Amino acid sequence: MSLVLHGYFRSSASWRVRIALHMKRLAYETAPHHLRRSEQRAAEYLALNPQGLVPALVLDGGEILTQSLAICEYLDTTYPEPPLLPANPVQRARVRAFAQVIACDIHPVQNLKILNRLRDLKIDDTAVNDWARAVIAEGLDACESLLAAGPSGEFCFGGRPGLADVCLIPQLGNARRFGLELRWPRLLQIESTCNSISAFRDSAPEYQPDAE
Amino acid sequence: MSLVLHGYFRSSASWRVRIALHMKRLAYETAPHHLRRSEQRAAEYLALNPQGLVPALVLDGGEILTQSLAICEYLDTTYPEPPLLPANPVQRARVRAFAQVIACDIHPVQNLKILNRLRDLKIDDTAVNDWARAVIAEGLDACESLLAAGPSGEFCFGGRPGLADVCLIPQLGNARRFGLELRWPRLLQIESTCNSISAFRDSAPEYQPDAE
Repeated sequence: MSLVLHGYFRSSASWRVRIALHMKRLAYETAPHHLRRSEQRAAEYLALNPQGLVPALVLDGGEILTQSLAICEYLDTTYPEPPLLPANPVQRARVRAFAQVIACDIHPVQNLKILNRLRDLKIDDTAVNDWARAVIAEGLDACESLLAAGPSGEFCFGGRPGLADVCLIPQLGNARRFGLELRWPRLLQIESTCNSISAFRDSAPEYQPDAE
Repeated sequence: MSLVLHGYFRSSASWRVRIALHMKRLAYETAPHHLRRSEQRAAEYLALNPQGLVPALVLDGGEILTQSLAICEYLDTTYPEPPLLPANPVQRARVRAFAQVIACDIHPVQNLKILNRLRDLKIDDTAVNDWARAVIAEGLDACESLLAAGPSGEFCFGGRPGLADVCLIPQLGNARRFGLELRWPRLLQIESTCNSISAFRDSAPEYQPDAE
């Protein structure tokens, strides 16, 4: 038995968990579900995760975990090295807040599911893409400002990568896919540093078994 | 000096933090920002929270914390009794996942900011309200299913209230405001139990100093 990650190569929430698994040097199997073919709504997958969203992580003992941040926190508690969160409670709160700007306020408002809801309202493709771009840009503006008030360093919060970087890199990937002008020098510098680390590189969508 | 909670009586993210503060029996001052008058976009508040969202919690030492779940986790670490999360890592992950269904996938997709984005696209009020109702209903369906697979008890996860309940009660408040038919017997039972506890009752929007 081993860990099984149910995901989709392009899902940025799945991507976050892949980075965390690679950082912790944990072996896992990939169980892909093609979101554009709605495979995450199949009865078999809904039995795993009634929310019908990826990712879900199935543990050695068969327990099923859902929601990317909850999964990352589980991995961080169970496999403490290298840590995804700092030890100081205020710093932990700042890292989590940064992660939540992305995981609560950017990504769920620009993901495929919501864009399809807009299309159902007869919003045309240009306006749908403008929506995604505006949501991402506004959120990443806040991310850049939050970092300006924090510690310096090569990564989001200091000298090593953590939960904030785990969320940032996939979100920048989404920003690129929507053709956004990337106007955040600090965020781009962090991305470039992260991409020099194999845990981040190996987790990228294009290297996944279900990549198209 | 004391804790200062920047919020809005009707904001469900502020409401979550109020419940956590009351559960931990922490005194705090209320600094209201009227969302419908865009006071959270004022320069003075943006200096506190560049994201321009409530809540923000200012600590005794002047440190500013943002994002409701990050704030609740900070309070839980710093003031451990009563705990908002169980000790077992898998159970912790399940409670956090439930909280994130609400805080990531329901609330940010139905809050005032997003509904205003829809209005900017000339979506009429009926369709905007239908959007909110659909997002809430789908999310609460998932919540009810997640609980069916978990431990029994009067609260979301067992015999005492925690982070899941802290998120659920305000979200049910939103469901009511949008006139949703409340078709989730377990969730409603939990709500009724929570409302018998003063920490939940005293945190309700109608008892806040800025209530209208």
